[in-house]
Amino acid sequence: MPQRFKITVAYDGSEFAGWQIQPRDPSIQGHLEDALGTLTREKPRVHGSGRTDAGVHARAQVAHFDLEQPGSPRKLLAGLNAVLPEAIRVERLTACADSFHARFSAIGKEYRYFIWNGPVVPPFVTRYRARVPKSLDLPAMQSAAAQLEGEHDFAAFSANPNREVDGTVRRVSALKISGKGRELTLRACGDGFLYKMVRSLAGFLIRVGQGDLPPEAAHDILSSQTRTATVPTADARGLFLWRVRYR
Amino acid sequence: MPQRFKITVAYDGSEFAGWQIQPRDPSIQGHLEDALGTLTREKPRVHGSGRTDAGVHARAQVAHFDLEQPGSPRKLLAGLNAVLPEAIRVERLTACADSFHARFSAIGKEYRYFIWNGPVVPPFVTRYRARVPKSLDLPAMQSAAAQLEGEHDFAAFSANPNREVDGTVRRVSALKISGKGRELTLRACGDGFLYKMVRSLAGFLIRVGQGDLPPEAAHDILSSQTRTATVPTADARGLFLWRVRYR
Repeated sequence: MPQRFKITVAYDGSEFAGWQIQPRDPSIQGHLEDALGTLTREKPRVHGSGRTDAGVHARAQVAHFDLEQPGSPRKLLAGLNAVLPEAIRVERLTACADSFHARFSAIGKEYRYFIWNGPVVPPFVTRYRARVPKSLDLPAMQSAAAQLEGEHDFAAFSANPNREVDGTVRRVSALKISGKGRELTLRACGDGFLYKMVRSLAGFLIRVGQGDLPPEAAHDILSSQTRTATVPTADARGLFLWRVRYR
Repeated sequence: MPQRFKITVAYDGSEFAGWQIQPRDPSIQGHLEDALGTLTREKPRVHGSGRTDAGVHARAQVAHFDLEQPGSPRKLLAGLNAVLPEAIRVERLTACADSFHARFSAIGKEYRYFIWNGPVVPPFVTRYRARVPKSLDLPAMQSAAAQLEGEHDFAAFSANPNREVDGTVRRVSALKISGKGRELTLRACGDGFLYKMVRSLAGFLIRVGQGDLPPEAAHDILSSQTRTATVPTADARGLFLWRVRYR
């Protein structure tokens, strides 16, 4: 019987074509599978909780894989980090039950989107912040965000509603935006998110903050159930998969 | 009469051969001079408060330069940041008196050295932290640091005492180390520092923290006035020029 392992992975997505394995471009999943191949002579498939796009980061992505000949979790964790690029770190690795599935066992996710609201982004965070030079109206953004909380059809905030096999209704349990100095943080929690949904919500809220749209536009856009140019997709570099929740 | 300008510059030193202009390798000074050349058709020399080595960062390096045909400081600041790589940001630019000199007017400097005390450094800070897997004894490091405060001959903590034209006595007004979770921060303030002195102090303190040397070794090493293998030079990536003080 193979042993299943659960891993928590942090990555800087700047240099990768996203989570999902690609024929040519470097991916997080590809690096993890190659590293496991190097260490174990098995090459298990690594299943993530979901994909992240090119340039998107993860503070705590969760994945699982099976090994026929499992070694010690402690050695496997150290081995993976020795083989992987520094931009991908396995922060936890534990043996888990076969019933655990990184994607299907997940009951919720939290994303965070970081905005630097000023013309000059410090070089130490430039890979991790969307740059918005124009001063943003935080109360207007908070008002718009509040209208997007709850269960809605988010088709208008998806990049490709037709590819969603489970429809386009999702429950956003929290969409909170806070500011500290020049830094704005958007926290999005929910049972699941459509393709590019968090970056679409961020793109819309930035437009509201810049005064291009009133907060009340949230309601009309939701009702339209149609994606238009009114909702831009915000820069990938500001987005972090922050946490995956399991029962 | 040319106009003198004072700039405050933040940089991620990871990809550069250091502050000082080099014939082949990319440097901070070289990038700044090239950017000014592109923007003004003059190519003034840019004088920094001091050099930083390859891989060392600056939160707030200070420099000055003169322009025969000065434009508006606001436009010059925006122009520089448009031309420079994202890893180098000019955070402030002001016209200043001809009597100001970034190096000779400086009365003190603060460096900070950041250590990640654990086996797995988060990818978002891996360029900015020295990695020390073994658990460090913070009180022992604090005791050793306290013995290094004050005016001493720091020859034993310099990489090349013979190249110091002003001798090897310096006054360290503060050498404080604090911890928060896995992160340790060393703060070094003084009127000036010898070549690689902060990294040598950090290297020594890490050895004390690992239990390789007792805190009391600080006194004997200072007295020896001789650099030996007892004092290693800690990883450049942990070091930030944090602040330059002027009257």
